[in-house]
Amino acid sequence: MSELRYNLVSGEWVIVATERAKRPKDFLKVKEKKELPAYKDNCPFCPGNEKLTPAETYRLGDEKSWKVRSVTNLFGALSTNTEHGRKLEGLYLSMGGFGNSEVLIEHPLHNTIIPLMKDEEVENIIHMYKQRYLAMTRVEGIEAIIIFKNHGPMAGTSLEHPHSQLIATPIVPPQVRGRVEKATHYFDMTGQCVFCRTLEEELKAKKRLILETDKFVSFLPYAGSSPFTMWLFPRRHMAYFGHITDEEIKDLAINLKTTLQKLYYGLENPDYNFTIRSIPVKERGTEYFHWYISIIPRMTQPAGFELGSGMFINTSLPEEAAEFLRQVKI
Amino acid sequence: MSELRYNLVSGEWVIVATERAKRPKDFLKVKEKKELPAYKDNCPFCPGNEKLTPAETYRLGDEKSWKVRSVTNLFGALSTNTEHGRKLEGLYLSMGGFGNSEVLIEHPLHNTIIPLMKDEEVENIIHMYKQRYLAMTRVEGIEAIIIFKNHGPMAGTSLEHPHSQLIATPIVPPQVRGRVEKATHYFDMTGQCVFCRTLEEELKAKKRLILETDKFVSFLPYAGSSPFTMWLFPRRHMAYFGHITDEEIKDLAINLKTTLQKLYYGLENPDYNFTIRSIPVKERGTEYFHWYISIIPRMTQPAGFELGSGMFINTSLPEEAAEFLRQVKI
Repeated sequence: MSELRYNLVSGEWVIVATERAKRPKDFLKVKEKKELPAYKDNCPFCPGNEKLTPAETYRLGDEKSWKVRSVTNLFGALSTNTEHGRKLEGLYLSMGGFGNSEVLIEHPLHNTIIPLMKDEEVENIIHMYKQRYLAMTRVEGIEAIIIFKNHGPMAGTSLEHPHSQLIATPIVPPQVRGRVEKATHYFDMTGQCVFCRTLEEELKAKKRLILETDKFVSFLPYAGSSPFTMWLFPRRHMAYFGHITDEEIKDLAINLKTTLQKLYYGLENPDYNFTIRSIPVKERGTEYFHWYISIIPRMTQPAGFELGSGMFINTSLPEEAAEFLRQVKI
Repeated sequence: MSELRYNLVSGEWVIVATERAKRPKDFLKVKEKKELPAYKDNCPFCPGNEKLTPAETYRLGDEKSWKVRSVTNLFGALSTNTEHGRKLEGLYLSMGGFGNSEVLIEHPLHNTIIPLMKDEEVENIIHMYKQRYLAMTRVEGIEAIIIFKNHGPMAGTSLEHPHSQLIATPIVPPQVRGRVEKATHYFDMTGQCVFCRTLEEELKAKKRLILETDKFVSFLPYAGSSPFTMWLFPRRHMAYFGHITDEEIKDLAINLKTTLQKLYYGLENPDYNFTIRSIPVKERGTEYFHWYISIIPRMTQPAGFELGSGMFINTSLPEEAAEFLRQVKI
């Protein structure tokens, strides 16, 4: 009928449809193919329109022929131009929207995406991630930094030009706190990193693996909360994304690109989010965590049960999805 | 710019857009109006098609002229026909999909919805909720019971016939555990129920209220995680939904119907979920919780930031949304 699986990282039980699971091919959605232009007059992220964006915070390449660049998000949820500090009014606690929101523009071309870029171009993006991440850690009052990507309308964006985002928060988000606490507890109990242990287990079991490269491994988690949810772990134990080396960036570029190619070719460019999960800024000296990337294709819509319980129903078997992705020809 | 608000019930900080918040009217989506038939030949929930559903578990009224009825969910995620108990395989913990899934059919008519029903008809639905809830508490191995409704495709359903659902789980979902822990901690700290305190504060502040009836109050939470998220609290302190009285059911029917009418007429029948949040079955004797209903219109799509942090960005000001809903003529 179905099976419950415990996610050691999130501490959540996921209901995995087993007998009634959909086949990987069933998730293929026929979409109207839209031909995009390489350059768009009114796109603020296209070269030549740099004046349409707020202050540039990072650039690789010349002003007129940049490779990647980041800018303050004009519609950002949080900003450094706001007061920082908690206020208590009656029963309720609030604080100003202090923090930072940036747009990380991945490529000059309007009509490309990571699976279609050259390896070096993906490498440039990850260098930008690291530089903006480190810059944020130096801002007084920032507690956590979330780097993420929204690809397609189901994933929450309608902007075509390839870009990621960064939001730096003045508090540690509860989900981040929860994962660090779980990992710390696991360490206290077993003396081991739950992520290193997971990686070891997955490399042995093989059935959920997608891709092994020199320094990274991508696979489907045993108890992923939705169809085709993927994890991308560094092999080296590192709690803090800011500690990634140039060599690791080179390898991550290949792994991330290839893993996303599997999605792109296998499921015809589905909408997805990815996010880098790292330890909070002020815990960067501790080792009870292991940063990683979650890639979450948006195949299904969470409904009342998910909202009412925080539990998820995964209608795809991770082992079947992994086999399918391994066989996708690139 | 924006403001962070702390949600005392969930323990989460929510980013509330203040200056750049959308106006309530901006959430109106023009939808194609679809005229539904009162009865549909192939609908398993329509009268006359009772043989198309699995075993009936509850019925109000005669076999041929029922008012509400519940049946086992043919495509349920969990079932009592499965073994119960945890298994450890290598690193990973799993268990059989033990539990229960039911469909709670709200009305014989295919083309009605709660806002358009008579008060007594809504009352019948809530009686069914209570009866099925209590029945589940008597099943050995059930730890929590989630009653919820998915209305419309954005809320995860495409079935037209008015229905709610029940899923009974063999574990306490982490979100349920988390809310009970937060409330218990608040009690330990202050000697008070955080829900009773919230209700007191909201009745005093008035600006987030939607509707007061004799025994229930509906309002927008101070730190709601999405536009038009609403809470419906019983005035009486009760941890456990199973303790609702007949008089309270009568009053809840009026409050729930009217609150949903505000949505229906004010925002032109948006998609929404609602869920009853109650204490886990085995804690029904404790008093550190207060059951309530969350109504969550599906106005926006959570994206990478939400998935990467567990934090939410609410693009609507609860105070403005409440004023708008109060003024909706019914």
